Amino acid sequence: MAGKRGKEQPGEDALIERIKTILGPPGPPVRVGIGDDAAALCESADDSETLVTTDLLVEGVHFNLEWASPYQVGWKAIAASVSDIAAMGGKPTAAVVSVGARPRAREYFIKSLYEGIAAACERYGVVIAGGDTVRSDRAIVNIAMLGRARKNRAILRKGAAPGDIILVTDTCGDSAAGLQILSLFPKSEITIPFMKRLINRHLAPEPSLAAGLAASASLAPTAMMDLSDGLAVDLPRLTARSGVGAVILEEKIPTSPDLRAWARRSDVPFATFAVRGGEDFNLLITASASKVDDLERNLESAGTRATRIGEIVPRERGITLVSSSGEILPWPEASFLHF
Amino acid sequence: MAGKRGKEQPGEDALIERIKTILGPPGPPVRVGIGDDAAALCESADDSETLVTTDLLVEGVHFNLEWASPYQVGWKAIAASVSDIAAMGGKPTAAVVSVGARPRAREYFIKSLYEGIAAACERYGVVIAGGDTVRSDRAIVNIAMLGRARKNRAILRKGAAPGDIILVTDTCGDSAAGLQILSLFPKSEITIPFMKRLINRHLAPEPSLAAGLAASASLAPTAMMDLSDGLAVDLPRLTARSGVGAVILEEKIPTSPDLRAWARRSDVPFATFAVRGGEDFNLLITASASKVDDLERNLESAGTRATRIGEIVPRERGITLVSSSGEILPWPEASFLHF
Repeated sequence: MAGKRGKEQPGEDALIERIKTILGPPGPPVRVGIGDDAAALCESADDSETLVTTDLLVEGVHFNLEWASPYQVGWKAIAASVSDIAAMGGKPTAAVVSVGARPRAREYFIKSLYEGIAAACERYGVVIAGGDTVRSDRAIVNIAMLGRARKNRAILRKGAAPGDIILVTDTCGDSAAGLQILSLFPKSEITIPFMKRLINRHLAPEPSLAAGLAASASLAPTAMMDLSDGLAVDLPRLTARSGVGAVILEEKIPTSPDLRAWARRSDVPFATFAVRGGEDFNLLITASASKVDDLERNLESAGTRATRIGEIVPRERGITLVSSSGEILPWPEASFLHF
Repeated sequence: MAGKRGKEQPGEDALIERIKTILGPPGPPVRVGIGDDAAALCESADDSETLVTTDLLVEGVHFNLEWASPYQVGWKAIAASVSDIAAMGGKPTAAVVSVGARPRAREYFIKSLYEGIAAACERYGVVIAGGDTVRSDRAIVNIAMLGRARKNRAILRKGAAPGDIILVTDTCGDSAAGLQILSLFPKSEITIPFMKRLINRHLAPEPSLAAGLAASASLAPTAMMDLSDGLAVDLPRLTARSGVGAVILEEKIPTSPDLRAWARRSDVPFATFAVRGGEDFNLLITASASKVDDLERNLESAGTRATRIGEIVPRERGITLVSSSGEILPWPEASFLHF
């Protein structure tokens, strides 16, 4: 995910800052560089700009071939990159794929992986332009994806202002619940439908492409990003970039019946999945109070429900979580991450 | 290297064909897809097109941290990608970088790597637009690079026709000799200047960017590619794409005094390095006999010497090598590669 965040580790954000220092401020054609879901480049004379994002997935860190088929790894890799482009309000166009595979497993791995890639590309309108395949003792997949947005109109993480409403699309926490289920049971023994659906949300996620385009078309968002590392990690990234604070009402965070069913069975409150779980690939959006109705209408027309979960406040107030019992809590740490 | 060749393994080219079957023919915006140095995308209304290439480097396969500093790995990764864009006759613009690093070595590795990346980007006019950093038990670097070429004018591997002259820029085999020296001696014991220069050609190669642009400006090339896997592997890729054969005169292949000095010391004839050695990142160009003078003049103005090494012949004649003693030999197999 270009221009990016540090995934999976709190110290990653500090590392990104050091990399920015080494590289210095980016010049043309880069308009938006490191630190957003995707980078934005102004290269052509027409009214569009190029978006670009890169995403590296390593076996044993980002995917587990005992749980996920290479097909699913391919699907998810494309989905995660589409999500980055969608989070800028853009439309993905083309991608290049780098694959590392063990020499022995190579034939099957690459065939199945590319079938998943092809299926996701077909679904989201992406064309594979090229790639690189190399030997590696761990499976590796890197997707670099290009997209288009209206010139100077890609929606960034900065731009949120006090008084803005904070919304999320769809529901939160399903993917993390699916991951937990996979870690607890042999895959073949998971037969209960809601558990299978949660696993599927983890292994074959759907990026919020239509929602991102609808949000962009509404002209309402002041900031937007995708929830790939979970609200606990991603919201502070948006507020840091925008120079603001936030209040989130825990009971407003939308969760699915499947997640609530799993939470009843497990020892983990569903709010924990919803706040700390990653890889839902839904959108976190801020909009001024006067435009939030427009935003919701546009999202609804695109088949996406958005939920108001809180409000942007001045930076001094930091980020707080109002618990379901009305208690004001400090923002939770990202203890759920798998780095 | 997008749209790409298989690196490092003869079976790779067959694999690429299978991937192309799974993906089907690419639609717009991809004009040139899998199978060239970079892909070409027509996205804008102006007279340029976007080039894109991706290149995955894995520790222990593509680089060795006992030999190369992370700085050198960063430099070479950018250089290899610049070379792919140059081989299309394009100009690199921006890149995104994915890095995998061991948690312990992370701070130093990423700092030094990015310093090398920054130095190479400064040299070749590339802006880093974004990246991704993840945990990995082996160091991994993926560069996806964007470039620009004149619309419909990127120089492809296809296009060579019988009667065309085959040229290479600079010299061949230095990088492979440097690699052999590194494999034979502890780095600290390598003090002889010509050996140090050969090592440097391997660890800190310079892509032929000015040459690629000059070749493109001459309008002379019928086909062009960079020699990243060596003449033995890369020439058959060009001839296969163009549907032609070739005759190469071994004694015409340009080699450096350093390589010849090393060949005298080692058991390997210098022609072996020149034909089979990879990673020189010079250019293989074909041009019609009527335009080859123009090409050479343009290259010379850009400070690059080109050498005529053979001729394109009809496909039926295959690829042959005329040895220095005048013997007609079958084209050598790629036994020197390190997959």
